[in-house]
Amino acid sequence: MSRTEQQRWAEAQQDAILDTLRRFAAIPSVSTDPAYAADMARGAAFLASEMERCGLEHVAVQPTAGHPVVSADWLHAPGKPTILIYGHYDVQPPDPLEKWRTPPFEPKVADDRLYGRGVSDDKGPVVVALSALAAFLQTTGSLPVNVKLLIEGEEEIGSAHLDAFVAEHAGDLAADFVLSADGATWRADLPTIAVASRGICALELTVTGAEKDLHSGRHGGSVANPLQAMSRLLASLHDDKGAVTVEGFYGAVHPPTAEERRLLTEIPFDEAEYLRSVGAPEAAGETGWTMLERNWLRPTLELNGLWGGYSGPGSKTVIPSEAHAKITCRLVPDQRPDDILACIERHLHRYCPPGVRVSVVREPGGALAVAVPPDHAGLRLAMQVLEEAFGRPTLPVRMGATVPIGGIFRHRLGIETVFFSFATSDEDYHAPNEFFRLGRLRDGVQAWIRYIELLGQQNGPPKAA
Amino acid sequence: MSRTEQQRWAEAQQDAILDTLRRFAAIPSVSTDPAYAADMARGAAFLASEMERCGLEHVAVQPTAGHPVVSADWLHAPGKPTILIYGHYDVQPPDPLEKWRTPPFEPKVADDRLYGRGVSDDKGPVVVALSALAAFLQTTGSLPVNVKLLIEGEEEIGSAHLDAFVAEHAGDLAADFVLSADGATWRADLPTIAVASRGICALELTVTGAEKDLHSGRHGGSVANPLQAMSRLLASLHDDKGAVTVEGFYGAVHPPTAEERRLLTEIPFDEAEYLRSVGAPEAAGETGWTMLERNWLRPTLELNGLWGGYSGPGSKTVIPSEAHAKITCRLVPDQRPDDILACIERHLHRYCPPGVRVSVVREPGGALAVAVPPDHAGLRLAMQVLEEAFGRPTLPVRMGATVPIGGIFRHRLGIETVFFSFATSDEDYHAPNEFFRLGRLRDGVQAWIRYIELLGQQNGPPKAA
Repeated sequence: MSRTEQQRWAEAQQDAILDTLRRFAAIPSVSTDPAYAADMARGAAFLASEMERCGLEHVAVQPTAGHPVVSADWLHAPGKPTILIYGHYDVQPPDPLEKWRTPPFEPKVADDRLYGRGVSDDKGPVVVALSALAAFLQTTGSLPVNVKLLIEGEEEIGSAHLDAFVAEHAGDLAADFVLSADGATWRADLPTIAVASRGICALELTVTGAEKDLHSGRHGGSVANPLQAMSRLLASLHDDKGAVTVEGFYGAVHPPTAEERRLLTEIPFDEAEYLRSVGAPEAAGETGWTMLERNWLRPTLELNGLWGGYSGPGSKTVIPSEAHAKITCRLVPDQRPDDILACIERHLHRYCPPGVRVSVVREPGGALAVAVPPDHAGLRLAMQVLEEAFGRPTLPVRMGATVPIGGIFRHRLGIETVFFSFATSDEDYHAPNEFFRLGRLRDGVQAWIRYIELLGQQNGPPKAA
Repeated sequence: MSRTEQQRWAEAQQDAILDTLRRFAAIPSVSTDPAYAADMARGAAFLASEMERCGLEHVAVQPTAGHPVVSADWLHAPGKPTILIYGHYDVQPPDPLEKWRTPPFEPKVADDRLYGRGVSDDKGPVVVALSALAAFLQTTGSLPVNVKLLIEGEEEIGSAHLDAFVAEHAGDLAADFVLSADGATWRADLPTIAVASRGICALELTVTGAEKDLHSGRHGGSVANPLQAMSRLLASLHDDKGAVTVEGFYGAVHPPTAEERRLLTEIPFDEAEYLRSVGAPEAAGETGWTMLERNWLRPTLELNGLWGGYSGPGSKTVIPSEAHAKITCRLVPDQRPDDILACIERHLHRYCPPGVRVSVVREPGGALAVAVPPDHAGLRLAMQVLEEAFGRPTLPVRMGATVPIGGIFRHRLGIETVFFSFATSDEDYHAPNEFFRLGRLRDGVQAWIRYIELLGQQNGPPKAA
């Protein structure tokens, strides 16, 4: 297939596109930590100026109760479909800093990859989308479809204020469907598209013993040790077979159909290869399910943080006053975040060991699991573009991760979300040495241009295939 | 009982004795921090000059691989017992500085107490011992017993080089028993004497899952979570009744005799009052034992630190690569630190959950539990002197904490250590606003004079009562 004018333009602009991403990723827009508040504002301003540069209209940094949303539109294709492009400009914290081989906010190219916090999640994919739009607007001055952009600043903290924002601006945001630049593809070597994601809910718990730290000699044996009580309490959350023991946790979970389980067996997945790729000694988890089933079809309860007492060099004979833990659950359709948190809270109080008190703080920003209907036209088009690019059929896959926006857009705007991201799930986002493949940066822009072009050949709202 | 010449001398010298302690405590002899190296040398020199002023002989600042030992003797009482007086001139760091009401190294009298770092642990008790010796040497020019002094500079960092020093100088240090100016008494309102202390051993363990931190959505369910595995592993160290489940842990433990348990019931101890004092919601620990038994007679396995994953604000959906924990055990007589560490190490490897690896690092510096035989003459004499001073019988109590010197002197010199300190365990040593009761400074000197006088009435090594 010969290149279009837009695709040739994008090809010629590759260095400039990479430079844009480097400057974007050099801004430490960490949404979870108030210490980065000024950098979040810089991130939003940078993004707005890039939207202007593309030729988009009504560019605005719009306040929310948290970090602002950056929005824009171009709506001069009457009778053509309207898409709402979604992405986020906030990034994960860079900790643990000492494990980065290069500074997280000084993006660096090595081995045809760009290394830096946020390059894959989600600044690279956002730059892909913007560059595709620029390719049209900078060549012909117009787009073959109508576009609205909503790039939020709170994805890494559960899109806490997005729901209220979308509800408030539902009229302005009306579209045929959402095309998301976020939501990394499953593998680098296969054309895949995500058709479902898990939900999430989060809490932090504190176990308190004595009011002050105590000397473990003078007091050891007399009173409870909050670290021991915490270990015991956390260990009670799973049984010996890796299943969650919290009463009610699986109450709303529909067992997958035989057909759903069979479809999963058709996905090429090498368990041993996967274990090698993450450097894990062996598989582990809920017995009775394959690894893909555990990650895609089953809910989980995971500890994300655990701390208390002394962690410096040598030993310190302390019985600390407090121990802390952070928990998140990945949910499957029909598990409601608030219900699950309530079940866990009851469990923690019920099984709290003697001699300590437990307190629980629910984190805001729970999200529902979502699944796109297999015949959705925007989804089918994405599968077609990927098939053209890879020369082989696109596999519909699920995501173990959470993209809260799916539930928000469906609930508030009544539309589905199609994930068309060119990040790949092995790119160490949420970990040190996050990277984005430069090849995916190039291919992504080409694919987005093709998608927009094909969508523009349709009249009105896209039809089911 | 009428005062002796020495006791009257000491009474007249009270202001001078307090002044000596103030000047001693004004020297920030913090052993753990190299920034105080010059002050450690000043502390040793000050102590040596005070020993000279008392009239002691062979005063020497003797090097070790760490901070020096200050020693002296007076050995002109042929046929009389020889005691080795122990104490230390190093102090804890003053942090957190902002919590001190007066500067830690500007000792200040208020409410019949002297406030300052090290006044109770152990400079006040050392000045008590020196003043008692001075009372004899400055009045009659002689002592009724033979004395050797060994005041070390590393007690606050685990007496790291004392064992080697004592082994090397075993001939010079030969004595009938050790009389320790260190080892605070249990309570201010009761005559008590410590007859036993627990030993200690320490290790750190690391549980490793994947080689890198993983996103809990993309990977959750597929591989083990090291924080969950750590919780499970740590929870396996105790049973539901608070007993340690490690095979071999109790192997060397002698159950206390009915008489030992009965004696403990005679110790006035108000459990509810204790719980109020530490702000603990309720008692906890190994079932089947009273609180004092758990703290004094039973070994413990305590977690002192636990960390892994994300502990910042908000949530981070990470499955960390590693989880860490620090453990110390308090040991009872015949439990050997190395044996206990080996048992725990075996347990940790044996019960390591699937999907993770565990590694263990043993901390150096274990110490044996010690117990002075109840009929030890030096101990009986100390009990008698305290009974005279308080007008009520002295209670033999144990220590839940560890005093490594007891094991060192027994092992290297074959002698027992009698703790005859006039510090009290509520004097906030190791904490801000450390203080020493001025009444205990006065009473301590009187009691030490009486002790030396009575010991001098014995011929040769002290006899069992």
